[in-house]
Amino acid sequence: MSELDQSKKYFEDFSEGFVFEYQVPGLSVEEITDFALQYDPQPFHLDETAASETHFGGLVASGFQTQLKCFGPFCREVLLNSGSVGAPGIDNLKWLRPWFPNVLLEVSAKLIRKRVSSKLTGLGYINFELEALADGAPLLTMEWAVIMLTRGTPSID
Amino acid sequence: MSELDQSKKYFEDFSEGFVFEYQVPGLSVEEITDFALQYDPQPFHLDETAASETHFGGLVASGFQTQLKCFGPFCREVLLNSGSVGAPGIDNLKWLRPWFPNVLLEVSAKLIRKRVSSKLTGLGYINFELEALADGAPLLTMEWAVIMLTRGTPSID
Repeated sequence: MSELDQSKKYFEDFSEGFVFEYQVPGLSVEEITDFALQYDPQPFHLDETAASETHFGGLVASGFQTQLKCFGPFCREVLLNSGSVGAPGIDNLKWLRPWFPNVLLEVSAKLIRKRVSSKLTGLGYINFELEALADGAPLLTMEWAVIMLTRGTPSID
Repeated sequence: MSELDQSKKYFEDFSEGFVFEYQVPGLSVEEITDFALQYDPQPFHLDETAASETHFGGLVASGFQTQLKCFGPFCREVLLNSGSVGAPGIDNLKWLRPWFPNVLLEVSAKLIRKRVSSKLTGLGYINFELEALADGAPLLTMEWAVIMLTRGTPSID
């Protein structure tokens, strides 16, 4: 484990009220079908004609792809510049509405609580709530905890 | 919405006690780093050397990739032959241990409960619990509900 890196954010550097807001560009039809072919080949994600015959009335992105596209900017802008060591899971992922092609998402990831680990020395949990809006209405929400090194103890070795 | 397709399984065709068991082959280093580059570029998923200096001690797959690789066979073998119309989310995704390269996963997806929707005519909820084991110990678990057409009402138009 390396020394404390002063250019990074650690547990203590995240304040209650921290919010990261960003946009996720709409996906093309090809991006949606390419992902579906590889990971989630249900007809409403895979093929425009087949999708038009389903209750969605047209092609929609896999919910997993929506989640990944919302997570990406958070990962790059928040986690890569931090003492994050991973996450124990996702508490509550909701796909509230379908994501149709070429629809921009407005995303906010809000710090909802934080606590020092009672079991693991030098680590804390920071809980985030992410909400993605399409045309002003919620489309995806999820909550999860990031496990983060504290400045107090730079190593977990 | 098409007519009831007798080759498919509908809500009534899934019994309490249904279990789908399968294996997920281990991922190569390249598969792990390719996914990370696109979706989850944290150092322990992206680069063997950087990963060796983290608490994981080596490269591990993104938890999102683990989830997708576990979902894929279930999607193809269970959902594509059914009246599934989607899912409202994932209730509880737990990443219990890291997935190192070339480790086979033994997965079981078990039906844990089902109920006819009280609000949506012709639809029911089927809840599944998925567990992936590596070397006999749980590595990933998740629960989710599939929304499924009933035989009684083949259309939700």
